[in-house]
Amino acid sequence: MGVNKKDIFIRSLSGFIIGPVVVLSFLLYPTLIGLVTTIVMLASFEFIEMASQELKDKNVFKLFMTLLVGTASLIYGFAIEAEYQGILPFEAETIFFLAFFVLSFSVLLNIKDIRMAKKLISAGAISLLYISFFLSNFFMLHINYGSSMAILALTSVWMYDAAAYFFGLNFGKHKISPTFSPKKSWEGFIGGIFGTYVYIFLFEMIRNYLNFKNIINPFYMIFFAIMVGVFDTVGDLIESIFKRHYNVKDSSDILPGHGGLLDRIDGLLMVTPMWYFLLRIFWI
Amino acid sequence: MGVNKKDIFIRSLSGFIIGPVVVLSFLLYPTLIGLVTTIVMLASFEFIEMASQELKDKNVFKLFMTLLVGTASLIYGFAIEAEYQGILPFEAETIFFLAFFVLSFSVLLNIKDIRMAKKLISAGAISLLYISFFLSNFFMLHINYGSSMAILALTSVWMYDAAAYFFGLNFGKHKISPTFSPKKSWEGFIGGIFGTYVYIFLFEMIRNYLNFKNIINPFYMIFFAIMVGVFDTVGDLIESIFKRHYNVKDSSDILPGHGGLLDRIDGLLMVTPMWYFLLRIFWI
Repeated sequence: MGVNKKDIFIRSLSGFIIGPVVVLSFLLYPTLIGLVTTIVMLASFEFIEMASQELKDKNVFKLFMTLLVGTASLIYGFAIEAEYQGILPFEAETIFFLAFFVLSFSVLLNIKDIRMAKKLISAGAISLLYISFFLSNFFMLHINYGSSMAILALTSVWMYDAAAYFFGLNFGKHKISPTFSPKKSWEGFIGGIFGTYVYIFLFEMIRNYLNFKNIINPFYMIFFAIMVGVFDTVGDLIESIFKRHYNVKDSSDILPGHGGLLDRIDGLLMVTPMWYFLLRIFWI
Repeated sequence: MGVNKKDIFIRSLSGFIIGPVVVLSFLLYPTLIGLVTTIVMLASFEFIEMASQELKDKNVFKLFMTLLVGTASLIYGFAIEAEYQGILPFEAETIFFLAFFVLSFSVLLNIKDIRMAKKLISAGAISLLYISFFLSNFFMLHINYGSSMAILALTSVWMYDAAAYFFGLNFGKHKISPTFSPKKSWEGFIGGIFGTYVYIFLFEMIRNYLNFKNIINPFYMIFFAIMVGVFDTVGDLIESIFKRHYNVKDSSDILPGHGGLLDRIDGLLMVTPMWYFLLRIFWI
């Protein structure tokens, strides 16, 4: 496997610039909502664009769909907060149902071609569920466990990716899925989980030292690290399937050297809800 | 429009047999769970089968996917109940996330063809969201407002369909959507809403007389009747788009004379979550 040094440089550079901005946005709930909404819109735009490449003359409509999916995240963020304060008369999740209705209704009014209508409704539904709803689990993490826990979930995925990349590059021999993602190796997977465990351990040591609450104990960390590895890999493979089906290599070129934005968050989309779920079932 | 008398007879007959069984199953919460799970499995099987017609040799796998989608409804039904009793450590909606993970993971392990993998993951995600999650709103209606309200929501959709069919047949002139569903007329739509209003009015009069709580007042009924017309029509058109895209007329032949089961519940899928939402925002 040839590695381009310039690529790695650009990748590291944009990572070092964007990483801290993202982490800082996690500190306050309103900035987190803003960040999630932005990421959801960019990723949904890529996904909808990918699914409807043939539809050239409906850019305004695709933009409208993207805005709708983003708005669902935005309103959901505030709705969740209102629900926790007991002032929301309905379930916050209903936002996504309403968004699905508006989306389908707009497709019915605007798109006359049946094949495109089906593709846009599917792509919209998947964006709402898979991108908007799954990523919105950061709201739950933030409200229930504070910004430090949300940052730990986010950066654990980054750490897993970095460690898996390092171990895969140096020791990778046995492929996980030659069909869907030829670069992944079992060595990278195991090394990634190991790296993630060490990272969570250090992060929680510092949180503990600073008297934070809801510390994950070292035994439960094993489950978190393995989960990050499994769910990140599955999320990544799901996105690979969609990309290969639509014959695109990178979902877009928003982050230089990082492939598409969707490529960067595909693992996160699966890990975030599961991180929250593990915290809950372990009564942390 | 030619109407086949034998078709109408068979349609009415199977309706008269199945209708009461369905309504009776709504009386108790466990039987409602059983009914919803069954309907979700049958409808998902049709949907998955429709989306993956080329995949002939994987019937066991499709059956597994169907079972998984049904199981999600089943567990969700009990999880919702546990959540209302305060004994569920996590959000009940997480069930659908976990089901999506298991589904994607199984596709990755079992399907080697990228095109089919993408189709099955999409069809599974849409079945989970659109069929299983949307229809599961009957659980919310039942737990919060009792069986009579859930039965009202269900039968209002039947009443709308019957009234829209009657008015459309006798006065239908102006088509709603010639592209997606050539049979629908504005006259049927208006007549259907009118019929639904009258039905809700009579139903609530009886509920009121029997001292039931949470009666919808005659003014709010206007919104419910219009909503049933709009959401039923949109649900129906969405299903039309999927069917026409996959080149099938009826989604299956489970109910004689009724077309596919998915055809029978497509409107209900959209109306049920909205019915619950209206009850909530009107503080009923």
